[in-house]
Amino acid sequence: MGVQEPGSSEFYVDRNVLNEISLDEVARKRTFSIKPPLKERVKDSLRCSVPKLKRSVLGFLPVLSWLPRYSLRDNALGDLTSGISVGIMHLPMGLAYSLLAGTPPVYGLYTSFYPVLVYIIFGTSKHISMGTFAVTSLMVGTVTQTLAPNSNYMTLNGTNGTAVLDSTALYNDRVQIASSLTVLCGIFQFAMGLLQVGFIATYLSDPLVRGYTTGAGIQVVLSQLSSTFGISTSLYTGPLSQVYLLIDVCRHLPMTNIGAVVITLVSLVVLITVKELNTCYAKKLPAPIPIELIVIIVGTIISYYANLNGLYKVAVVGQIPRGLLAPRNPDISLWGSVAGSAFALAIVGYAISISLGKTFGLKHGYKVDSNQELIALGACNLVGGFFQCHFVTPALSRSLLQETTGGKTQMVGLVSSVFMLIIILEIGTLFQQLPKAVLACIVYVNLKGIFVQFWDIPALWKSNKVDLMVWLVTLVCTILLNLDMGLAVAVAFSIITVIVRSQLPNYYILGRVPGTEIYLDIDAYEEVKEIPGVIIFRSSTTMYYTNAELYLDALQKKSGIDTGKLITQKKKREAEEKRQAKTEENKAKKEAKKLRLNGHLPNGTVHPEDDIDLQKASQDLKGNQLSIILTDRANNGQVNWAFEKSSEAGFPGDDLKTQKSSTNGDGEMGSSHNKHTLILDLSTASFVDTVTLKTLRNIFCIYWTHCLTLFVSTPVCVVEQLSIAGFFCESIPKSCLFATVHDAVLHSLRVHGDKDIILYDYALVSGTFWNLSLRICSFPINI
Amino acid sequence: MGVQEPGSSEFYVDRNVLNEISLDEVARKRTFSIKPPLKERVKDSLRCSVPKLKRSVLGFLPVLSWLPRYSLRDNALGDLTSGISVGIMHLPMGLAYSLLAGTPPVYGLYTSFYPVLVYIIFGTSKHISMGTFAVTSLMVGTVTQTLAPNSNYMTLNGTNGTAVLDSTALYNDRVQIASSLTVLCGIFQFAMGLLQVGFIATYLSDPLVRGYTTGAGIQVVLSQLSSTFGISTSLYTGPLSQVYLLIDVCRHLPMTNIGAVVITLVSLVVLITVKELNTCYAKKLPAPIPIELIVIIVGTIISYYANLNGLYKVAVVGQIPRGLLAPRNPDISLWGSVAGSAFALAIVGYAISISLGKTFGLKHGYKVDSNQELIALGACNLVGGFFQCHFVTPALSRSLLQETTGGKTQMVGLVSSVFMLIIILEIGTLFQQLPKAVLACIVYVNLKGIFVQFWDIPALWKSNKVDLMVWLVTLVCTILLNLDMGLAVAVAFSIITVIVRSQLPNYYILGRVPGTEIYLDIDAYEEVKEIPGVIIFRSSTTMYYTNAELYLDALQKKSGIDTGKLITQKKKREAEEKRQAKTEENKAKKEAKKLRLNGHLPNGTVHPEDDIDLQKASQDLKGNQLSIILTDRANNGQVNWAFEKSSEAGFPGDDLKTQKSSTNGDGEMGSSHNKHTLILDLSTASFVDTVTLKTLRNIFCIYWTHCLTLFVSTPVCVVEQLSIAGFFCESIPKSCLFATVHDAVLHSLRVHGDKDIILYDYALVSGTFWNLSLRICSFPINI
Repeated sequence: MGVQEPGSSEFYVDRNVLNEISLDEVARKRTFSIKPPLKERVKDSLRCSVPKLKRSVLGFLPVLSWLPRYSLRDNALGDLTSGISVGIMHLPMGLAYSLLAGTPPVYGLYTSFYPVLVYIIFGTSKHISMGTFAVTSLMVGTVTQTLAPNSNYMTLNGTNGTAVLDSTALYNDRVQIASSLTVLCGIFQFAMGLLQVGFIATYLSDPLVRGYTTGAGIQVVLSQLSSTFGISTSLYTGPLSQVYLLIDVCRHLPMTNIGAVVITLVSLVVLITVKELNTCYAKKLPAPIPIELIVIIVGTIISYYANLNGLYKVAVVGQIPRGLLAPRNPDISLWGSVAGSAFALAIVGYAISISLGKTFGLKHGYKVDSNQELIALGACNLVGGFFQCHFVTPALSRSLLQETTGGKTQMVGLVSSVFMLIIILEIGTLFQQLPKAVLACIVYVNLKGIFVQFWDIPALWKSNKVDLMVWLVTLVCTILLNLDMGLAVAVAFSIITVIVRSQLPNYYILGRVPGTEIYLDIDAYEEVKEIPGVIIFRSSTTMYYTNAELYLDALQKKSGIDTGKLITQKKKREAEEKRQAKTEENKAKKEAKKLRLNGHLPNGTVHPEDDIDLQKASQDLKGNQLSIILTDRANNGQVNWAFEKSSEAGFPGDDLKTQKSSTNGDGEMGSSHNKHTLILDLSTASFVDTVTLKTLRNIFCIYWTHCLTLFVSTPVCVVEQLSIAGFFCESIPKSCLFATVHDAVLHSLRVHGDKDIILYDYALVSGTFWNLSLRICSFPINI
Repeated sequence: MGVQEPGSSEFYVDRNVLNEISLDEVARKRTFSIKPPLKERVKDSLRCSVPKLKRSVLGFLPVLSWLPRYSLRDNALGDLTSGISVGIMHLPMGLAYSLLAGTPPVYGLYTSFYPVLVYIIFGTSKHISMGTFAVTSLMVGTVTQTLAPNSNYMTLNGTNGTAVLDSTALYNDRVQIASSLTVLCGIFQFAMGLLQVGFIATYLSDPLVRGYTTGAGIQVVLSQLSSTFGISTSLYTGPLSQVYLLIDVCRHLPMTNIGAVVITLVSLVVLITVKELNTCYAKKLPAPIPIELIVIIVGTIISYYANLNGLYKVAVVGQIPRGLLAPRNPDISLWGSVAGSAFALAIVGYAISISLGKTFGLKHGYKVDSNQELIALGACNLVGGFFQCHFVTPALSRSLLQETTGGKTQMVGLVSSVFMLIIILEIGTLFQQLPKAVLACIVYVNLKGIFVQFWDIPALWKSNKVDLMVWLVTLVCTILLNLDMGLAVAVAFSIITVIVRSQLPNYYILGRVPGTEIYLDIDAYEEVKEIPGVIIFRSSTTMYYTNAELYLDALQKKSGIDTGKLITQKKKREAEEKRQAKTEENKAKKEAKKLRLNGHLPNGTVHPEDDIDLQKASQDLKGNQLSIILTDRANNGQVNWAFEKSSEAGFPGDDLKTQKSSTNGDGEMGSSHNKHTLILDLSTASFVDTVTLKTLRNIFCIYWTHCLTLFVSTPVCVVEQLSIAGFFCESIPKSCLFATVHDAVLHSLRVHGDKDIILYDYALVSGTFWNLSLRICSFPINI
């Protein structure tokens, strides 16, 4: 046999070994940069044209692109139904979440009105419902309660000497704080949107956001316990505040208001039952039963007629003014003290918004622009803040309702806003007798979506333990620290996991899958065996400063080559060489002369100094290449081996070969003499820093006197960066960088043509050295 | 042609296409874990044996392994010369750097004595010289001067009402602070060594350490200006303190002490000149001229006889007690306030030590154990602190001296310690009249090694701009903030650069290098062209939560497929299919019946429901595989195409093919109908997190209705992690993961056997579809 028909298998390749230089020739690497020069790009970006302007305006005001094309026939019905459903949801949520934000309920209604209108103009997502959201409302509440605690507004009642809360001043200040905070958040978001830094939301990874919202959900529940039990608790801020709060609630339990507990239990049972029914009959109902609305209406009526507030001291919502308020300037002096919270709020709000937006976008096939969403959210909060709204972000439950009830465009927001306007102007004021305990129940049942996230724990345990750790750390930090510090710690932890993961890579010694050019981890596969004499080393991640040392250590350990010995040997050899240099010089010259006459070089006497003469002599015959043919030591007449020296790039391995031949007899190479090539597979590298560069140079320096050191790299950018950093030089030419591991192995076997290795390789690589008349000599065919 | 001789080229491969399943079969993936179970490993690590114990003891006390084998003949002379040279260097450095540490000079001498002895016992590096070092001494000085500022020790002189410094109490307290700090640093280092967390020094990358030491060097110079000009400056701490100090120095310049300036100028000229001579004649001199020693001796003599202190008010070193001090317990109450500084000091000291140690180790071919060095350094500081030394770390200049003067082992330390002991006991006290200005000069000239690091700026500008940024940010932070805050900020910045680098990868569309199985960036190479209909997409770095969204965006942009349209089309199609489902059902059943009778399936009518029957029918004939042969639409009689369905793994592409065939006529595929395969090359992935998983699933969901989606992955750990995370399921079988890009391309072309593509492929891949009788049909040969 020997001659095989190509194509008897599916994967057939027949080509020359490619190193970086030859690959660049074959593939014709572009010398010019693809990118136009910086000046051109700046010029280009500043150039103004009508289509460009139009594109920017449409991008900034998406309403201009979708409203003119609004199809009444397709969308009107869905948008109307959906808008009313969402509006019905806005009412109880607005009332309930304003409790969390620490402002009077009517401001929750405003928050469900103004920002929703603004989002219609700027928003790109068609299904998210802007408005109040539990987690962000609580974050606002933390700020308002810290800056304006009840204790600051206690005045001594002149008549009986008891402390009385000046609730007008308190709520006035809290609304001012909440709206100033919201304006600042809006400015942050708007500015980030203009600066196109929407990517920062990606730092809040999925497990982090889920852990965070779960932790915040627990805080929300804790904050509502006082309404549920009708007790009053002290204010706690800072780390561990939630623990103190829980202790405080427990201590006050004996003072529980029975009326509030009864209301809670009844409301909860009704809400949960009907919500479950809604879920079960989701397909049969045209729209889910608006049970929150029913509960607050019934609750208000009962409370009013039974006079729960007067008779049983059940806390009620209290005054709800009729009508809208004129805009008010934010209190800029507060910004200094709320900047940190505002930033955290801006980021959290955006992260929730964009993740919801992207999810719906993916589902319905439209594009949600990260930066435009940031601008839209910023505009909502900026405008809302002036109208004394608190922070808005889309809520999952409302957005899902909007989608399931057939909402098709941002027009849903307009319908729900009209609905809210009617509530604010006419109906809202009727809810003054609504017990706060009912609102607390509405808060609880709307947290369901957040608490099902606890199922992440078993799911992540199975799939990804690092992400589970991020989830849990975030949860714990959120509960134990306050909401902004917790977020900061969680983000830092999440980044550290990435660093640690990339710092502790797996290192592999690769071997060849028999009959293929694929190289895999020899530990993981039974049939994969090392190529004798060749060490192929790969790291599972990019080498950079934190893991460069580990790389070197792992290489020494895995390759089994004692570099200490190598260096000592090198030093000894150098010293000995120096001593012998003078005595050998004359002898060598004589031998070289003899060689030139005979036209070949006997084993073990190649001397670097003769290379040039030798080359001259053989150039006429063989063109650009110098081939030195050495007879096999075993001298069985059949097997010869050879190596070549490319004259264009003094390949270090070749000099080395020469050197090794001359020291072969000494037995200096010790136990590891059978390793002749080290191949570093850099295909997982993604960038190169100075520490990597230094480490690679060190590896080269340590190993090259002992074995041929080759590099493999596919990523184009890595080669580029290595070149820029000046990695390639006379001693490390580009020709020691190969396109694939197999190319490097073939090159190595060609240079170090030991009999055993070639036979082995021939048997497996099938034909690699076949028929290469002058360069590689003939073999007995044994396939 | 057609039939080619194998081996006419160097790289020859002929095999079947391998996907993850077939690869596992061929390479025989090990099902058992290589690592023994956790219980076993714990047991194993707790098991105690004599060789193991011996190894641990020798590891912990390296002196036991090298001292018994100490060869007097080889090492004694070198160690003696080197030890004396280093000792001579220790004297001026100890005196000078104690000024930086804010303690009396004699404590600098102690610092050059005790810790050096301890290092002999624990140290693994043979060439580093423990002792005082400018940067760390300054860090100690910052702490002592902050906790015990001069202003606290001013007492009103009863006679004339002027403030007088109580220097005894001041120095007593400062020494106590410095030694307590040092003990704490020692504990940190020792503990970190025992916990084997030596890797944390890797967070201080090379550019960071160099930027940091340069910044600290500038601070050292600034701190010595007052000695140079003989003025007294106020103490500044916290951010911008160096700026205030510089302003203060400038303000006091009119009060300059002329004597001090003259001494400085003369000393500097002498020191620099002789040091330059030392460098020039390094080879001719047996040991460098100990010019520092000469300068301090001459300085002391002149100062003493000219009575510089009395006549010209030149500040001198002052009292130097004779003899050693008894050990003293550290003041543990201070630890709370110095913990941060102690940690920074411990890390910086270790980073400098290990980088020096590794450099010498690499040069001289011995192993420096990171964790043992940490233990050694910890022991030095722990013991030193009890003997009222301040923090030690090896100094570059002394270590280089130790190496160049022929030091061979840790024995050098013993010699230099004996030398220091003599100084402390007998000679030190003679230096009481030494002007501080001379010591300041010694500090300056020893900073040369640190200031040459400014050449890093042009070097890094050329090689690596990100590292240059790290260098500069570190320098600026170190100068503007204090030394520990600056370090923390620099480390954080350095980590952020890694995150940003991995967050902003390059994305490539790959094409094939003609005549090879190598796929490269089509933008970077002229000859590299896309395989028609196949999109191969690669990211330069691993996909993880911060860049997953970018990946998706880049894929959409680069592939030119509008996913929005895809999803809308899919929705429309689904709606239409539902409508038609009932009417088609009967028709399909009829056709299937017909087919079963004929034994083949005409184009465009494959119905999933019939698969099983069809399979049964053909199983007898073809064993495990179901092949469906379809005639070419162009019907030129020559070109047929086929695809196969492996019964064991329902490949999604196959179902898809069926689906596509049935919808081909509708022209629904739009403008991108020519793209039939998407291949995601995951070979640069190093780990998988939940966000990545979600993104990959999303990509699959978006694209699979439109084109065959395949994955390519070489890293074993990625496949492992994907499996664990449950990525592979019925709809995404393992068989859509391929070993190489080429395998995936070949598979794709086999499934989507359009005429043009196969011809193209045939021309280039040469023989891929040749001669595969049943599965792939014959072709006109046109090479």
